[in-house]
Amino acid sequence: MSNRFNSIQSEFQISYRYEVFFTKHLFAVNNLVLCDFFNLKEQEGTKKKVLVVVDDGILLHQKNIREAIQTYFETNVTSVQLVKNILTIPGGENAKNQNEFWELVSSAISEYGIDRHSYVMAIGGGAFLDMVGFATAVSHRGIRLIRIPTTVLSQNDSGVGVKNSINYLGKKNFLGTFAPPVAVFNDSSFLVSLDERDWRSGIAEAVKVSLIKEETFFRWIESNVQSLVNRDIGVMEQLVFDCARLHIEHIRSGDPFEFGSSRPLDFGHWFAHKLEYLSNFSIRHGEAVAVGIALDSIYSFLCGDLEEKEYLRILRLLLGLGFTLNFPILLEKGKENLEIALEEFREHLGGKLTLLMLDGIGKPKEVYTMDHSILMSAFDIMVNFR
Amino acid sequence: MSNRFNSIQSEFQISYRYEVFFTKHLFAVNNLVLCDFFNLKEQEGTKKKVLVVVDDGILLHQKNIREAIQTYFETNVTSVQLVKNILTIPGGENAKNQNEFWELVSSAISEYGIDRHSYVMAIGGGAFLDMVGFATAVSHRGIRLIRIPTTVLSQNDSGVGVKNSINYLGKKNFLGTFAPPVAVFNDSSFLVSLDERDWRSGIAEAVKVSLIKEETFFRWIESNVQSLVNRDIGVMEQLVFDCARLHIEHIRSGDPFEFGSSRPLDFGHWFAHKLEYLSNFSIRHGEAVAVGIALDSIYSFLCGDLEEKEYLRILRLLLGLGFTLNFPILLEKGKENLEIALEEFREHLGGKLTLLMLDGIGKPKEVYTMDHSILMSAFDIMVNFR
Ligand SMILES: NC(=O)c1ccc[n+]([C@@H]2O[C@H](COP(=O)([O-])OP(=O)(O)OC[C@H]3O[C@@H](n4cnc5c(N)ncnc54)[C@H](O)[C@@H]3O)[C@@H](O)[C@H]2O)c1
Ligand SMILES: NC(=O)c1ccc[n+]([C@@H]2O[C@H](COP(=O)([O-])OP(=O)(O)OC[C@H]3O[C@@H](n4cnc5c(N)ncnc54)[C@H](O)[C@@H]3O)[C@@H](O)[C@H]2O)c1
Ligand SMILES: [Zn+2]
Ligand SMILES: [Zn+2]
Repeated sequence: MSNRFNSIQSEFQISYRYEVFFTKHLFAVNNLVLCDFFNLKEQEGTKKKVLVVVDDGILLHQKNIREAIQTYFETNVTSVQLVKNILTIPGGENAKNQNEFWELVSSAISEYGIDRHSYVMAIGGGAFLDMVGFATAVSHRGIRLIRIPTTVLSQNDSGVGVKNSINYLGKKNFLGTFAPPVAVFNDSSFLVSLDERDWRSGIAEAVKVSLIKEETFFRWIESNVQSLVNRDIGVMEQLVFDCARLHIEHIRSGDPFEFGSSRPLDFGHWFAHKLEYLSNFSIRHGEAVAVGIALDSIYSFLCGDLEEKEYLRILRLLLGLGFTLNFPILLEKGKENLEIALEEFREHLGGKLTLLMLDGIGKPKEVYTMDHSILMSAFDIMVNFR
Repeated sequence: MSNRFNSIQSEFQISYRYEVFFTKHLFAVNNLVLCDFFNLKEQEGTKKKVLVVVDDGILLHQKNIREAIQTYFETNVTSVQLVKNILTIPGGENAKNQNEFWELVSSAISEYGIDRHSYVMAIGGGAFLDMVGFATAVSHRGIRLIRIPTTVLSQNDSGVGVKNSINYLGKKNFLGTFAPPVAVFNDSSFLVSLDERDWRSGIAEAVKVSLIKEETFFRWIESNVQSLVNRDIGVMEQLVFDCARLHIEHIRSGDPFEFGSSRPLDFGHWFAHKLEYLSNFSIRHGEAVAVGIALDSIYSFLCGDLEEKEYLRILRLLLGLGFTLNFPILLEKGKENLEIALEEFREHLGGKLTLLMLDGIGKPKEVYTMDHSILMSAFDIMVNFR
């Protein structure tokens, strides 16, 4: 056997396909969206199981959700078998901080005999879905996951994508996988019980994606600021739909499992990650993204890429939506952390630093460095903006 | 918004490609296979890191392997940066039984700043590679993994495939993912230090794959029994190459991430899994697979699918190679566990029971049930075979 040129190539493609449904009152017995999904899937003859896990934050507002789910399955769904015991697990960031929570889901998968052809149906916010997503992705090398996101952010961004994660060794999202769901059901009726900050937070992702993908969507958000502030659910449904659509289009046509260094959907995120961390996660992800968007928009203006009136529109939109651009922690520690945040983002991406800035509204531009003094000036303009 | 028919499809493909190299003395400074691999990969400008982790079972026989690796990188490899600290972690099944071992790997990934574009290079047996594979697959949602398998079984089967796993909740392989490596280097010089059982064990997978894929390979193994028993390394290299080739061809052309219910490479495995478990893993995987092959071959004969002289050739080959078909635990508990094993295998696959049996040597046949009394007879013939 020669020392070289003796090798075998392994090369193949894996196809993924999932549908994101938009609906209202998913578990009302006369809503057949979920039931139709199962009926369409189940033609193999053997009856699959469905294990349901619910974010306890929802239970505060919908005390009877478990009973409603049981009734729905009893009435409508004959093609799969609901596991009687519906689990409730804490939601919010803490769900991702301790191993006990994802281990609870994996133990239930084992206990109830959920196999690779059975389902876990997870109902909750982005943090909860990330945690359950991790547990299902690694149990039996991947259980079929149905996501039912219940916050604006999870309905228009995290819940329709392909990633999951938990926090580990004190590092945000350190453990996780790329694992597409088999279906997502976005039910707008969940959104009414969100507190004001969670209602607003997810809107930042819509502003983000409009800025890098679609100027008409940006204008639409501008003209609906008041309705959004007034919690008009119809307007929110439209926002969620368009934001989810743009995210999905991006994932489909891009690099879904992020093998490359570029992460266009992370516009405004390089500093947002650091800000969340500096605030010990008391600042919500979307709130931090709003700050990141403002900073990068001002930076793009100072570099001569974005017109003055454009960056002003962006900042006014963010303030109009109720976002804060001068958190105390930002004034206190923001500036000294700008360079650190950039370096951490580079490490996080792996490979070379690749960022998006704006050439116009709806017109992104890749850059590979940021000018330190321009960045400082952008920061000052932002925190003093009224 | 209507309650139905409002949805977005997400649909995409992910491409994987990795090369399996066959070589000798991988870390000899005049062997450029590994060095060439890195040079070819690294054209992006930024220098990636390589974290090396070694199965401590190898260290018993190659005390200086860490120094050899360091010298190799110093002398040959300028395109990547070796992490100075080469980790040694216990190998063998115990590596998969306790969380502390994969967590050690994940902690090192964090500590040494190994990002998604950097490498972990794992050197060891199948169990060790499964454990390191799991840690790398879930850290940062997937670090690039280079596998250097050091046992027959890992070189011709587990190490060239796409799966990893650890044992959890007392269940074998309960946690794991599908995560193709970026490259595999099969170095036959590792095999000389294997103990007799590990040398033999991996040969069972070659017999298996020959029976379901390639009659000529089966005949080749038959005519090389003595050389294999005498530990002729040249013959073993050929066996490993052909077995790896057939496994890879199968993965490429089949269902690499096992979304369906059929698992053709698991011929002879439905009972093997149970036997390993009954023996508390004192029976090696390959030793159990040999028993499983014998049982299914006799069963195929009794069903009238395999000719008498064919099943006799198979059993004689297994005995000639030194495999045991009448382990005490088999005599004691085998029979009463046949049906249980079938049911567990069905659960493990999820969906409907799909098994391979033989229609001839090199001619597989799918079946969906097994006849209880024929199975009992097959078992009796096996344990009494001389
Ligand atoms: N996987 C991804 O691609 C991705 C992308 C972006 C963000 N994320 C993650 O998403 C998480 C943030 O998600 P989030 O913004 O949805 O917040 P969250 O999940 O932390 O939820 C916020 C709070 O709302 C509660 N809640 C959930 N649904 C509710 C409802 N309908 N009514 C009332 N309360 C409800 C939760 O219990 C929680 O206390 C972060 O951990 C972030 O890392 C993941
Ligand atoms: N991922 C997959 O697709 C897949 C497929 C089949 C089997 N497996 C797994 O593989 C494992 C079995 O692997 P294995 O048969 O390689 O055994 P092993 O990894 O348990 O190794 C056996 C022993 O040999 C030692 N060893 C390793 N290399 C050596 C060398 N060159 N010289 C001397 N000693 C050495 C190890 O330290 C260990 O003590 C099982 O856990 C099984 O579940 C995985
Ligand atoms: Zn975001
Ligand atoms: Zn095997």
